[in-house]
Amino acid sequence: MEKSLWQHIATVRQQSPLVHNITNFVVMNNTANALLAVGASPIMAHAHSEVADMVSIAHALVINIGTLDEYWVESMLLAAATANKSNKPWVLDPVGAGATAYRDEVLQKLLAFNPTIIRGNASEIMALAKNNTVTTKGVDSTAASNDAISSARLLVEKYKAVVCISGAVDFVVDSKQTVSITNGHPLMTKVTGLGCSATALIGAFAGVTANKTEAAVAAMAVLSIAGELAEQQSKGPGSLQLHLLDQLYALTEEVFNARLKLGITA
Amino acid sequence: MEKSLWQHIATVRQQSPLVHNITNFVVMNNTANALLAVGASPIMAHAHSEVADMVSIAHALVINIGTLDEYWVESMLLAAATANKSNKPWVLDPVGAGATAYRDEVLQKLLAFNPTIIRGNASEIMALAKNNTVTTKGVDSTAASNDAISSARLLVEKYKAVVCISGAVDFVVDSKQTVSITNGHPLMTKVTGLGCSATALIGAFAGVTANKTEAAVAAMAVLSIAGELAEQQSKGPGSLQLHLLDQLYALTEEVFNARLKLGITA
Amino acid sequence: MEKSLWQHIATVRQQSPLVHNITNFVVMNNTANALLAVGASPIMAHAHSEVADMVSIAHALVINIGTLDEYWVESMLLAAATANKSNKPWVLDPVGAGATAYRDEVLQKLLAFNPTIIRGNASEIMALAKNNTVTTKGVDSTAASNDAISSARLLVEKYKAVVCISGAVDFVVDSKQTVSITNGHPLMTKVTGLGCSATALIGAFAGVTANKTEAAVAAMAVLSIAGELAEQQSKGPGSLQLHLLDQLYALTEEVFNARLKLGITA
Repeated sequence: MEKSLWQHIATVRQQSPLVHNITNFVVMNNTANALLAVGASPIMAHAHSEVADMVSIAHALVINIGTLDEYWVESMLLAAATANKSNKPWVLDPVGAGATAYRDEVLQKLLAFNPTIIRGNASEIMALAKNNTVTTKGVDSTAASNDAISSARLLVEKYKAVVCISGAVDFVVDSKQTVSITNGHPLMTKVTGLGCSATALIGAFAGVTANKTEAAVAAMAVLSIAGELAEQQSKGPGSLQLHLLDQLYALTEEVFNARLKLGITA
Repeated sequence: MEKSLWQHIATVRQQSPLVHNITNFVVMNNTANALLAVGASPIMAHAHSEVADMVSIAHALVINIGTLDEYWVESMLLAAATANKSNKPWVLDPVGAGATAYRDEVLQKLLAFNPTIIRGNASEIMALAKNNTVTTKGVDSTAASNDAISSARLLVEKYKAVVCISGAVDFVVDSKQTVSITNGHPLMTKVTGLGCSATALIGAFAGVTANKTEAAVAAMAVLSIAGELAEQQSKGPGSLQLHLLDQLYALTEEVFNARLKLGITA
Repeated sequence: MEKSLWQHIATVRQQSPLVHNITNFVVMNNTANALLAVGASPIMAHAHSEVADMVSIAHALVINIGTLDEYWVESMLLAAATANKSNKPWVLDPVGAGATAYRDEVLQKLLAFNPTIIRGNASEIMALAKNNTVTTKGVDSTAASNDAISSARLLVEKYKAVVCISGAVDFVVDSKQTVSITNGHPLMTKVTGLGCSATALIGAFAGVTANKTEAAVAAMAVLSIAGELAEQQSKGPGSLQLHLLDQLYALTEEVFNARLKLGITA
C-alpha cells in the first residue's frame, strides 16, 4: 500500500476531482482551501432545488453534520440518496455524534444510504456504533483507541463502509485490515476543522481511487504529514493553519515517502 | 482585580469550558479558532431540534445576531430561554443594533431572557439603551465613550447584566464600578469579527468564573494584549489575524501582567 | 482612465462606503476582510424582515449566489428589487451559472432587476449569455477569452450592465469599449473565493464612483496587483491569502501605477 499512496496524490492533482460538500458553516472556507491545495475542485451546494443535480456532476460527495438543521438535513438525505442510487462515493463526517438525540437520529437516517467511508474521532465512532449494539459502552471523549477500533469494526460490518478514526494515531479499518498512520502533531487540534478537512480530502481521493481504503489512508497521510511539516514552521495555531495549506500544495513525493509512518494489521 | 485576571486565564486553559455559540456566518471560523487558542472548546449549533439540549451540556452560551434571520432568531430565543431558566451564563452581542427595526425588535425579545453579560461597540450599546429611554440620543457610530457609558449604566440597571463597551478603550460596567482596559491597537478594527471573538471569549471566561465582571475584563484584556503583541509582528490585517491567534495561544503570565493597563472607578 | 483609477482607490479609503453583501457561506469571512482592507465597510444581512432596510442604508449591494437556497434567493430578489427601484448600484456574481437548472432560473430572475455590473469567470459569463440566445455555444470551463467577450457584449446590450470577465486576463466590457487588465498570478486560483472578493470590491468602488466601468476596472486592478505582490512573498495558497490582505491594505499609488497593465479597445 505504501507505494500506491503517492500515486493517488498525483492522480488528485492531475484529475482535479469535483468534490460536492454539504458541510458546516465553521469550516466551509478552510475546507475549500484544503481541497484546492491538494488539487481538487470544491463545490458547496445544499438547495433542495439543485442538490441532486450537483451530486450527479461531482466525483464524490462529502456530508458533514457539524451545524445541521432541519433544512440542511433534508439536503443531506437527498444528496446521500442520490449518491447511493448512482454508486457515487460518499463520505460521512458524524460531527458531534452522541452529543444530542437529534444528531443521533439524523445519523441513523444517513447511515441507511450506505456511506462509502465514515470518518470521525474516537468518541464519534463509538457513539455511532452505540446506536447499533447494546453492548458498546457510552461516549467518552478520552476514548481509548482499542475501544474505537472495535466500534469501527461494528460499523464496517453493518454498513460495508470503510471507517476512519482520527486522533493522535489515525486508523483506517475495513473488513480485512486495520491501517494505522502515526503522523501529525497535537497542535493540529488547536485549529478548528482540520478533522473536517480530512473528511473532505478523503472525498477527493475517493473520487479518483477505486480502492477506498487506500483513498482514506492517502488523505489522512497527506494531511498529517503536511501538518507536522507546518508545525515546524509555526509559533501557534494561526500560523499552523497557513503553513498547512502551503505544505498541502507544495508536498513532494520524496518528503511524503520519507515521513510516512504506516502500520498494517490483519 | 488585576491579580485575579491571570488566574481566570489559567482556569480556562485548565478546564476547557464548552462554549455554545449561536453566531454569525462571517465569524464562525475565527470565533472557533479564538476559543481554541485560549484553551476553550467551541460548539456551534442552532437547530430547533437540538438547541436546548446543546445549551444544557455547555458551560456558557454566546448569542450574536450578526446575520440573523427568522429561523435563527427562534433558535436564539430557545437557547436564551433555556440558559435563563437553568441559570447558565449567557452573553449577548447585539451586532448592528439600531441599523434596522428588525434587529431592535429581536434584541428586545432577547433582553427579556436576562443576558448575564452584554458586549457591543459604543453605537450598539447606545442603540440598545435607546429602546428603554426617550432621553437617550440617537445612534452614532462615532459615539463618545461617556455617552456609551451612561447607556451601559441604564442597561446594567434595567437588566442586571454586566455591560462591556469595546473600542479604543474598552469599558466593563456593573452596578458598582466601571473598569477600563487601555490595551489593543487600531489595526484590530481592520480584521473582521474581532469584536465577535471578544464576545465569545467572554463566554469562555463566564463559563468558569463566578465573578462575571472579572470574566468580561479578563476576556477583553487577553484579546487586546494579544492584539497589540500581534500588531508588532504584522504588516497589515492579514498577518494580524494570524499572529493574534498565535499570541492568544502562547501568552504568558509575565507578559500579560506587564502589559495590562487597567483603570477602576466607582 | 489610468489616471483616474488611483483616485477611486483613494476615494474608497476616504469615504469608506457601506457595502451590503448577500453572499455565500464559503467566502463571507475573507470577503469582509478584503472590503475592510481597501477601506470599505462590509455588512452581511439576508433576513426577509430587514433586507430592504439594509439596502436603503448601504452605498452598494453585492449579490453572490454561490450557496443559494430558496430562502436566500428570496432575500436576493427582495434586495435586488429594492436596489433597482432606488437606483442604488448593485453587482451580480453568478457563481456556478450553468452548473444546474436551478442556478440558471434564479439568475434570470435576478437579471430582471438590472444589475449595474456583472462579474464572473468565462464559463459563467457564457452560461449567462446562453440563456438569451440559441446561437451561443455551451458552457466550457476552459473557455477562450474571445468567446466570453462576445457573451459579455450580449449581456451588456441586453441588460445595460457593465460586464467583467475575470481570468488570466481580466476584461471589463461596456457598450463602447473593452478594457483588459493583465495583472495577477495563477496561484490566486488556489485560494477559494478571490473571484467573490473581486465582486465585493467592485461593489465598494461602484458605491463611490459614478463611472461604473472605471469602478470595475479599479477593483480588478487593485486586487490583481495586490495578488501579484503577495505571490512574491508566498510559498503557497495559505500565505498568499494572508499577504493579499496586507497588500490591499498597504498598497501605494506609486506601486499601483508602476504595475498597472491596462489595455483599451473600442
